[in-house]
Amino acid sequence: MVPFRVDRWLLQEANKIVEPVGVHIELRSNALTTGTSGRPTIRVVNGQTLAHLLFNPDLSFGDAYTRGSLEIDGDLVSVLERLFECTSRLPKWISRLKTVWLRHVQANSLRGSRRNIRHHYDLPTDFYQLWLDRELIYTCAYFPERQATLEEAQQAKLKLICKKLWLKAGETMVEAGCGWGALSLYMAREYGVRVKAYNISHEQIVFARNRAREQGLSGEVEFIEDDYRNIHGHFDAFVSVGMLEHVGVEHYRDLGRIIHKVIGDSGRGLLHFIGRNFPKPINLWIQKRIFPGAYPPSLREALEVFEAQDFSVLDIENLRPHYALTLRHWLDRFEYSYDLVAGRRGEEFARMWRLYLAGSMVAFNLGTLQLFQVVFAGHRCSTVPWTRNDGKRAIERKPMDDVWIPAMC
Amino acid sequence: MVPFRVDRWLLQEANKIVEPVGVHIELRSNALTTGTSGRPTIRVVNGQTLAHLLFNPDLSFGDAYTRGSLEIDGDLVSVLERLFECTSRLPKWISRLKTVWLRHVQANSLRGSRRNIRHHYDLPTDFYQLWLDRELIYTCAYFPERQATLEEAQQAKLKLICKKLWLKAGETMVEAGCGWGALSLYMAREYGVRVKAYNISHEQIVFARNRAREQGLSGEVEFIEDDYRNIHGHFDAFVSVGMLEHVGVEHYRDLGRIIHKVIGDSGRGLLHFIGRNFPKPINLWIQKRIFPGAYPPSLREALEVFEAQDFSVLDIENLRPHYALTLRHWLDRFEYSYDLVAGRRGEEFARMWRLYLAGSMVAFNLGTLQLFQVVFAGHRCSTVPWTRNDGKRAIERKPMDDVWIPAMC
Repeated sequence: MVPFRVDRWLLQEANKIVEPVGVHIELRSNALTTGTSGRPTIRVVNGQTLAHLLFNPDLSFGDAYTRGSLEIDGDLVSVLERLFECTSRLPKWISRLKTVWLRHVQANSLRGSRRNIRHHYDLPTDFYQLWLDRELIYTCAYFPERQATLEEAQQAKLKLICKKLWLKAGETMVEAGCGWGALSLYMAREYGVRVKAYNISHEQIVFARNRAREQGLSGEVEFIEDDYRNIHGHFDAFVSVGMLEHVGVEHYRDLGRIIHKVIGDSGRGLLHFIGRNFPKPINLWIQKRIFPGAYPPSLREALEVFEAQDFSVLDIENLRPHYALTLRHWLDRFEYSYDLVAGRRGEEFARMWRLYLAGSMVAFNLGTLQLFQVVFAGHRCSTVPWTRNDGKRAIERKPMDDVWIPAMC
Repeated sequence: MVPFRVDRWLLQEANKIVEPVGVHIELRSNALTTGTSGRPTIRVVNGQTLAHLLFNPDLSFGDAYTRGSLEIDGDLVSVLERLFECTSRLPKWISRLKTVWLRHVQANSLRGSRRNIRHHYDLPTDFYQLWLDRELIYTCAYFPERQATLEEAQQAKLKLICKKLWLKAGETMVEAGCGWGALSLYMAREYGVRVKAYNISHEQIVFARNRAREQGLSGEVEFIEDDYRNIHGHFDAFVSVGMLEHVGVEHYRDLGRIIHKVIGDSGRGLLHFIGRNFPKPINLWIQKRIFPGAYPPSLREALEVFEAQDFSVLDIENLRPHYALTLRHWLDRFEYSYDLVAGRRGEEFARMWRLYLAGSMVAFNLGTLQLFQVVFAGHRCSTVPWTRNDGKRAIERKPMDDVWIPAMC
């Protein structure tokens, strides 16, 4: 029987790929198994799914898992870790082509960004409440000790950012891409700064405004439903946590210009973003199903934001292992609420999100994704701390009478 | 009289340029002064020098100062700070062309590097002993407190580097461009690591070997008179302090390959170098007279060392104000020994070095030069500290049985 022969061949080919990493593939639809011996096993529903997996693995794996036409016996995270290796040997041309096409379709124009952001961040807040921390901080946490709770680690992250920005009471801040508002509210509450916070996710802005009211901070923090490209005014500092990934490399110079417009040559800022060791297209499934328009840049690519504005990079920290641990917490909480998610939004949605969280955790664990915090300042910023441990005392800049001295040499 | 008229015109033009920054130019050769009123004054010997200053300022200023055909009334550093501004308005095309030509002539081939390095670093050690710290550390110091002495600050710098590299006793290190050997000897002495240190300056290597003998560290530290391109062996970590400026952008990928060859995917390293906020040719006079073949890269340019090797950038610190302070110390010590230098090596040599030290101090003060320390690691490095303040405890990397997991996604 021909289909039977084709299936057997596909199965053999697939197993040749995954066996070196100790994973086994079975066809659920018939008796074509080669003996599992307790190894982690991927059970695929039919030969067609298997064919898709072989020829367009980046997209098909996620889609098949989401639909349930692919099941995993064994720990999802550990199987994904193993698969991360062997899939690099599979043909990538289909996903490369689709990636290029999607970058076009999902371009981060003013309108495109709104559509892309809505896809992910306009999900009902009560969904995110099931598995994020109490304050709904949806970016890498900072664990001063590995045993810290997620709540503690997210608060420590907010503190770390404020410390790196050496905030002083009475200063003004602008935040681009403020999520549900936790950082802006923290800065106003703990450091006495005034904040304007921008976000194009309607759901998040509405939620953040309510929080500001509840906390009596509506006078200090203004949440504005608008694109970072429309930020205006003048501020002492700029901060953006988890937005650069949604900006698109082709807009980095524009972002730099906007930052310069609002903080000038005397201000400072911090960018916190997911990046890479070297430029590489985002995984096709993530790009298509999870984060349309997203791209984690290499550090070198990201620095394009700063060069044309004569900004000085002051400090960069890579928090990669902290993101792996953050995702471990999110995934555990997600699993705890899995049935609730599946009940509210359907099994496919729940499986898709489980795979996305587990896959991201693996990517940070293995170092295919990195997390950078970059502190920068205009070349006339006169308040830079003398050392890292010295948030209070600024460097001395010899007063030059009233002579204006720009950069040169 | 025609020359008189031309001189007057040149003087007027020159004063138009420097007056906005409060500097005044006089011709020493005749009575063509416009009244000084106690302002910082540049006294130029004749109209010819003035013409050179106007049409090729980058090179002519330094050369004229060196020859004594240009004198400065007032504090040299403060006058240079003012001039840094106004010279940016002067025609640059001559210096741009010469810069390109010199980059060709001074190319950092194996032979070219040797010639370039000899020009600067093979001066007799007793010259450097007049104004460097006791241990002859000729790179940016780290002042935990601004009041620290130069000696304390250079020791603190060595400690800072070792801390950032989380060295453990018994490990092996390679240092590329080791100067007079202070860092390598410190690492062996204080951290119990074994070091191979490379340098193509014969003077420095001979001196360093003597020190190793005196300190009984010849068994722990091997000083090798060779180019970084000839480093071989396998090491736990790589360090290079103040060498990248002499490598040349066109060799950064090669440098990355060499680092990868010796530390593999599991090692880590640190590069400490003078850089910039954005790419810009080096000042022509510095390139021609002081540091042939040198180029301080933008941070973005420097990161090319790491990308192709899948190295993760872990930490970057900008120590710019610390270099300005280091240079203040060097300049003060240099002035203290000025007569001795002039007696031994001639007035022109002494003036040239004074200008180079003062000009460098101004460049770091104004931010036209930056100082970056970049910590990096191979993507399989399993000993990375969990936080910056946590040099001892490494991150946990989940053991993957015996499965080999490379980067992907």
